[in-house]
Amino acid sequence: MIGHYLIGLPVEQLPTPALVLDYEAFMANIATMGDYLAKAKVNIRPHAKTHKTPAIGHIQMNAGAIGLCCATIGEAEVMVYAGIGNILVATEVVGAAAIRRLACLARHARIMVVVDDPANARDLSAAATQYGATLHVLVDLDVGQGRCGLRSIDRLVDLGKLVDKLPGLEFRGAFGYEGHVQFIPDRAERTKQGQAANALLVQGAKALAAAGLPVDIVSGAGTGTYDIAAAFPGITEIQAGSYIFMDGTYQKLGLPFKQALTVLATVVSRPTDDLAICDVGLKGISPERFNPSVQGHENAIEVQKLSEEHANARLSGGLDPRPGDKLHFIPSHCCTTVNLYDNLFVTRGGIVEAIWPIAARRA
Amino acid sequence: MIGHYLIGLPVEQLPTPALVLDYEAFMANIATMGDYLAKAKVNIRPHAKTHKTPAIGHIQMNAGAIGLCCATIGEAEVMVYAGIGNILVATEVVGAAAIRRLACLARHARIMVVVDDPANARDLSAAATQYGATLHVLVDLDVGQGRCGLRSIDRLVDLGKLVDKLPGLEFRGAFGYEGHVQFIPDRAERTKQGQAANALLVQGAKALAAAGLPVDIVSGAGTGTYDIAAAFPGITEIQAGSYIFMDGTYQKLGLPFKQALTVLATVVSRPTDDLAICDVGLKGISPERFNPSVQGHENAIEVQKLSEEHANARLSGGLDPRPGDKLHFIPSHCCTTVNLYDNLFVTRGGIVEAIWPIAARRA
Repeated sequence: MIGHYLIGLPVEQLPTPALVLDYEAFMANIATMGDYLAKAKVNIRPHAKTHKTPAIGHIQMNAGAIGLCCATIGEAEVMVYAGIGNILVATEVVGAAAIRRLACLARHARIMVVVDDPANARDLSAAATQYGATLHVLVDLDVGQGRCGLRSIDRLVDLGKLVDKLPGLEFRGAFGYEGHVQFIPDRAERTKQGQAANALLVQGAKALAAAGLPVDIVSGAGTGTYDIAAAFPGITEIQAGSYIFMDGTYQKLGLPFKQALTVLATVVSRPTDDLAICDVGLKGISPERFNPSVQGHENAIEVQKLSEEHANARLSGGLDPRPGDKLHFIPSHCCTTVNLYDNLFVTRGGIVEAIWPIAARRA
Repeated sequence: MIGHYLIGLPVEQLPTPALVLDYEAFMANIATMGDYLAKAKVNIRPHAKTHKTPAIGHIQMNAGAIGLCCATIGEAEVMVYAGIGNILVATEVVGAAAIRRLACLARHARIMVVVDDPANARDLSAAATQYGATLHVLVDLDVGQGRCGLRSIDRLVDLGKLVDKLPGLEFRGAFGYEGHVQFIPDRAERTKQGQAANALLVQGAKALAAAGLPVDIVSGAGTGTYDIAAAFPGITEIQAGSYIFMDGTYQKLGLPFKQALTVLATVVSRPTDDLAICDVGLKGISPERFNPSVQGHENAIEVQKLSEEHANARLSGGLDPRPGDKLHFIPSHCCTTVNLYDNLFVTRGGIVEAIWPIAARRA
């Protein structure tokens, strides 16, 4: 395992850039989400796309998750064969080879998938039948995100009826992810748009039930809308992912989760009095949305530019880091940052305590 | 090796997203660059940060490269132990552990590094002495990029003199990368700014020589300025990287290189008549600079949005791809896209012919 000889040493001794998890903040986030949803009597099916890390999936399952979401079949395979037996592949699975993989995986675990197309439902049914598997199915409704998902409830019901009668498939309910609402900074506006999306999804679920279909799952929401959706009658489960780590985008929303994930970097050059060049760039921290901040120096350091392996950090307020000094960067998006690494260095009180393989990266 | 059973089959059968290299276009690009620089009597030291792939490094060396550049020590280690014995680590190496690694690597290969700080030069000298290694050194001048590198020629000369007398270090010349010039679309403006950067670097090199230092390397330039720098008297070598693959950014410059790198994706949903959702997103293609285009459909498809594992492709002109169809995406930046993958699928005439490990990813 890369860096195993650093276990027990201060985090500052890690080779940089390094992806670092503050274990206590991370566990507090899992408890905060779990406690909230337990009181709301809504399930959590955390999204594994955020971490791609079996060690974290198990902690989430032990904390009461009813299963995990995955964004790719590869992620699902890694989680299943790391011992997590209940996976929702929260995207359409299309193409002969991918469907074959999904059906075979469903012989080793309880696998659920979303569909938005009758031909795809028939392909899934044929593969499930061929391999003697059962695929649990949610029908996918676009609730405003504008990505996958059916654009009408009539078509949703037609597809639900088809799924319900196709061999090898087991109809379970409705799916609708309000991705377009997650990052709206204003709480009132986020609530309004989140409720509109939830209302559409629940309307779809009711139409499915009215058609005689056994709707026992109505799945949606993310870290930005978990409490909005949990309070909305009819939503049965929350698919949040980022709450365990947090990032610069979600920090702006005033959520009750702590920043647990950082990227440790080294100052490698001080070419001028107000500039520090650090050894983390686009290949080590997500450039998505906006540039990273530096933990504890949010006002004194502005990251003005990321190149492939470097950050240009503009200094103010007399801050004077020396070459060799370490800084903790906070990414604007945790999921796409984790995707750049193979290992997560887990720390407690500034000491490296474990190294968790990000086993599903690029799986 | 992942996917080895697909060797010999059509590229469309690869699991998606897949990083795909058109071998003939790639080899043509290497020949085009090599022929041009041979005529100009300027060396090429290609940048391995672009590919992180030993198989490609060897092809470049066999085509006449005098060595490779690397952006991290990890990249350098991978290339050295894959049999490439002449590496320029084209960035400052700072911190005790990193310097230790560099000095030990220099006992196994010819290693050159850049410096912009006297204390760093002394640290490198101490480590080289301790481990009985020789580190070749270029002094780093900022030629307008505003990242690492000294801001004055006086300080450059002082640092050169220090390097020249420190044990374990061998002064070799000057380094200055005009990163700020690479993507200027207007040829005349790019030439003007490139020449200004080259002039500053050559001025620095002449000042070093005038101080009695043995300047035999003056290193700069990238894919956007290779010919400008090659024509500038005093520049001895070109560090270009992206010319082997090309990308959407460099396509805009009218360079004589072919698009050799694409990301193959599958259409997974057709929610509306003018929208195709494909299974490549931010985790499979760089979101840097601008959204990808789709090869052969540059006018009929506009990629409007990338989420983590999906692209929203807006269709026009009657284009009607079906779920399961494959499309080749062209990234806006090749280097940060390659960094997302562990393997490169090499094709000729649309047939998968080899799989090259991107062995230095996150090294």
